[in-house]
Amino acid sequence: MNEQIQDLEATLHHEIPITQSLGLTVESYDGQILRLKAPLEPNINHKDTAFAGSLNALLTLSGWGLVWLILKEAGIGAKIVIQDSRVKYLQPVATDFVATCRKPESAQIGRFENMLRIKGKARLELSAEIQDGDRLAVTFQGRYVVHLVELISPTLKI
Amino acid sequence: MNEQIQDLEATLHHEIPITQSLGLTVESYDGQILRLKAPLEPNINHKDTAFAGSLNALLTLSGWGLVWLILKEAGIGAKIVIQDSRVKYLQPVATDFVATCRKPESAQIGRFENMLRIKGKARLELSAEIQDGDRLAVTFQGRYVVHLVELISPTLKI
Repeated sequence: MNEQIQDLEATLHHEIPITQSLGLTVESYDGQILRLKAPLEPNINHKDTAFAGSLNALLTLSGWGLVWLILKEAGIGAKIVIQDSRVKYLQPVATDFVATCRKPESAQIGRFENMLRIKGKARLELSAEIQDGDRLAVTFQGRYVVHLVELISPTLKI
Repeated sequence: MNEQIQDLEATLHHEIPITQSLGLTVESYDGQILRLKAPLEPNINHKDTAFAGSLNALLTLSGWGLVWLILKEAGIGAKIVIQDSRVKYLQPVATDFVATCRKPESAQIGRFENMLRIKGKARLELSAEIQDGDRLAVTFQGRYVVHLVELISPTLKI
């Protein structure tokens, strides 16, 4: 699992360089839940809390990262773009923060992967959130569109 | 008008330092439309287009900046926070980009200012967008909550 985390972090830092300015790190992924972290300091705003744009960026990337992991696990090479998102800023965040994105149920992922293999394109809607201590601070729903590039599973590489 | 633009840009750079990493500048404000600009290069993603998080950040700030200008014009000192937003990423953006936010009708601003003076708190919903050439690339709706700090109009400063 550590290798997946390192690969994802390196991919994000390399492919979206401003993630380095955000201070983004991949905190954990247990096969179900992806957690991305950022320190408050580079993302601070005039009220000594995290800038909404930084919170949204981390949430957007937690969904992107989870789709990236799902595709990697399925042996599918694909391009991932976000189509739309909704964010509710419920509470200010006054500490380092973690965006948490949980995998949808396996049946939903199965339908997504089948659609992608058959049609070459599929959508996945994901929810993510940021807590501040025990309180839910920011909620996010994002819809990602994935375009098939290649099937890279071992059975198809032969 | 130039002084307003300089004040807003200095405020954004000072109060939300990551706006400097985004390369944000205030391009223009004609009393009706605020335009914030950012270069592609620091905001680029793996597809040589602008990262969705950067597009969203500039849009969020265009709404924040417009509320800041409205309050300044009304002589009201207040805190502005974003409550929620919806973004649609319609087209990739492959150049430097400009977020455009237009003032609501004056009757709506009048109601907002009255509510703020009477209740000490008011909401304003704003739309903003990013074009890529002639094409609409990103649309944004954001709801901002404003808390009165002080009335700083000349008649009340005496």
